[in-house]
Amino acid sequence: MSSSAMVSVPRRLAALGNKPSVWLEFTPLAAALRAINLGQGFPDWEPPEWVVAAATRAATDAAPETQQYARSRGHPRLLRAIADLYRRVRFPKQRLDPNKNVLVTNGASGALYLTLSCLVDEGDEVVVFEPTFDIYLGAIRLAGGIPRCVPFKWKGTPREGVTSLATPNELTSAADWSIDWDALCQVLGPRTRVLMINTPHNPLGKVLTRTELERLAEIIRPHPQVTVLSDEVYEHILFDGCEHISFGSLEGMFERSVSIFSAGKTFSVTGWKIGWIIGPESHIQRFHNAQQFIVFSVCTPMQAAVAECLEEAQRRHYFSELASFYQRRRDQLVDALFQSHLGPIVPQGGYFVVASFEHVPRFVNRFPEAMTEMEALAVPGLEIDDATRDRADYNFARWLSFECGITPIPLSAFYCADHANRADALVRFAFCKQEQVLEEASRRLHQLQRR
Amino acid sequence: MSSSAMVSVPRRLAALGNKPSVWLEFTPLAAALRAINLGQGFPDWEPPEWVVAAATRAATDAAPETQQYARSRGHPRLLRAIADLYRRVRFPKQRLDPNKNVLVTNGASGALYLTLSCLVDEGDEVVVFEPTFDIYLGAIRLAGGIPRCVPFKWKGTPREGVTSLATPNELTSAADWSIDWDALCQVLGPRTRVLMINTPHNPLGKVLTRTELERLAEIIRPHPQVTVLSDEVYEHILFDGCEHISFGSLEGMFERSVSIFSAGKTFSVTGWKIGWIIGPESHIQRFHNAQQFIVFSVCTPMQAAVAECLEEAQRRHYFSELASFYQRRRDQLVDALFQSHLGPIVPQGGYFVVASFEHVPRFVNRFPEAMTEMEALAVPGLEIDDATRDRADYNFARWLSFECGITPIPLSAFYCADHANRADALVRFAFCKQEQVLEEASRRLHQLQRR
Repeated sequence: MSSSAMVSVPRRLAALGNKPSVWLEFTPLAAALRAINLGQGFPDWEPPEWVVAAATRAATDAAPETQQYARSRGHPRLLRAIADLYRRVRFPKQRLDPNKNVLVTNGASGALYLTLSCLVDEGDEVVVFEPTFDIYLGAIRLAGGIPRCVPFKWKGTPREGVTSLATPNELTSAADWSIDWDALCQVLGPRTRVLMINTPHNPLGKVLTRTELERLAEIIRPHPQVTVLSDEVYEHILFDGCEHISFGSLEGMFERSVSIFSAGKTFSVTGWKIGWIIGPESHIQRFHNAQQFIVFSVCTPMQAAVAECLEEAQRRHYFSELASFYQRRRDQLVDALFQSHLGPIVPQGGYFVVASFEHVPRFVNRFPEAMTEMEALAVPGLEIDDATRDRADYNFARWLSFECGITPIPLSAFYCADHANRADALVRFAFCKQEQVLEEASRRLHQLQRR
Repeated sequence: MSSSAMVSVPRRLAALGNKPSVWLEFTPLAAALRAINLGQGFPDWEPPEWVVAAATRAATDAAPETQQYARSRGHPRLLRAIADLYRRVRFPKQRLDPNKNVLVTNGASGALYLTLSCLVDEGDEVVVFEPTFDIYLGAIRLAGGIPRCVPFKWKGTPREGVTSLATPNELTSAADWSIDWDALCQVLGPRTRVLMINTPHNPLGKVLTRTELERLAEIIRPHPQVTVLSDEVYEHILFDGCEHISFGSLEGMFERSVSIFSAGKTFSVTGWKIGWIIGPESHIQRFHNAQQFIVFSVCTPMQAAVAECLEEAQRRHYFSELASFYQRRRDQLVDALFQSHLGPIVPQGGYFVVASFEHVPRFVNRFPEAMTEMEALAVPGLEIDDATRDRADYNFARWLSFECGITPIPLSAFYCADHANRADALVRFAFCKQEQVLEEASRRLHQLQRR
């Protein structure tokens, strides 16, 4: 063992464990098989021309204001653009001071970690609903927190321990998944510091209703030590007339929460890594203080570009256009899954579909032999967690990659170890892909019908 | 008090304290007075045309490889460019695998925090030499560490507790400041996890010699639990034939250290926020694991641009050109200071000059009345730490801002509270400014002569 490998591991890192992330298996697997990768959630199209033009203008502007350090809090023009927009569309009752209520971060993931590290002390608890965006659990643990996971309930009657869909090819809705209020009340306690919500939800596509949000507000009201961290990165990707409501816009809840947003999801530029937090002054001040020492500041030219995009988007009515753009793709993928013995849970927002595979003919839960061969060939980057060799959802995702050339992500990756079996028959597909890619995916999925 | 202000503060944040950073006083002060701000270290010129062109090309390239998420480890082209360059110029004995020994970060500050949070557990100790880049202490505390500060020794004979320069207008060299080996050996112990070095040094401009680095290596050899964190962001800004040596290139020391570099300093684009860490595989793997949950990934188009810049720089012999470019500015500022009763410590590298003001006529250590007026006027962003109202270096920086329209940074901001009085007669000036700005600064400084 090399000397550097013997250096002691801080507790926060030990808490992360050595489990390879699900991406370290399925991204290289899809690449090696030239499968259509519907696992990772990034758009495969070119961003809108005017978005690219904004970035080009920012990159070309050689002035120090655009090429040198931004303030830790964010580029003044971007702070103003954010405050102007969100005052109108999300928080009409708030003044939203660009210099007090907004902080620009290194993407929404940067915002998540920053928020958690500023609110959570070692041993504090953070409540999350499951399934949950896989980065949440890692960020909570790195911040020294203990995740308390509350699985969503499905309104059908699942088999013991399994979130199974009742009939083959049944079209169900993400709205059928609901908060388990009793379980939530049980985990909330004096050590709870943060309650994380995500609407529209990754991976389910559930959009929290006003009624649900108000009930959440009622529940946290008697717990002044709890802050709601509301991840709203898919705020503009909504279907079937669903409305996006920020938890912070509810009566008295602006002071009790922070909301996280992202340019990457909205403008199809996940690589720009520009996110922002909106919240009460004392929280934003705290985050700002810490941000100076975590990243100091965020990429200036990309901040300038996002400022322009936010201003321009309103003139172009871009946000509603974005929703219909995604709705076409959602319908395309949902149809293809439905016709191929997979049971899609129709999302109300976001760009993922979760689907049940328990009625797919010929699939049996077995670690594919071909996987063993690929392991032996040491496909670059391929890392398989031994704990997943018997998991049905992992084996289905592997099998579908080999059999159909389509790679989804097993849903148990979005549950903590104790609850992983709730995802036994589910995988997640992304539909932030070009129409011709989704068409090819449909053709490949049709193989499942014929056999 | 608002409800959010009552939410408990995690220990890591409490350790930061409420002291406003020195920048929150002097940046708004310079702006309000329209003083020449020689406090902050960012270039005020346009980056080289070919650097702007690389960014423009990256921004314009709408392909997903350039606009969507990069891998957490870094953009493959940038990782290759880094490994190729540093294998040749810094670590000739190392193989440097782009996928094992390199990690791209959100600037060098992102690299500092990431490294510390992956090596330091709560209560562990981190040794730094003083004066020290002010972000170090904050990052150490946020990571739960305890800074153990070892002030550099000046080879003259300082007055008791004061690093005073012996005679008026004496030109001294940053090389006259040396490591206090006895003090270093005294603080190194079983709780030491990291020893931070910085060469070329901010703020002193000292370049560590091979002899000094080898002695450091000898000292840490019997302490296997210590990793050297070597901040080398000014690696290409060297004067008078000084040579930059990476600690990790010393016999056996690659495994014992990590080195941090930055595109911002080298290409005059501090706003791009692209840095990188080079080190042994086990450390890089650990940082990569944590980075997934701290920022997930770093701005893709800017990574692509930096890859192109690193490739291009070698063809253009840019690095040596950069050194002479800065040397002209150093000489210009050093001359101006020297002729104006300030005693500059001539830097061997970097883009700062520390100077003594104890022989400046007419200056008396008193909080300027005009400052009180500005406080009363609530100059936007101006925050004054009461603890600094009697500090001579703070009052000199304030006085010079009002009197001459030039704003330096007081050097005690680069010392921990216990050692602040060692900087009693010193301030720091940046010379990463256009020649005409430095000329105007010279003219203004000449007022000090006349009076």
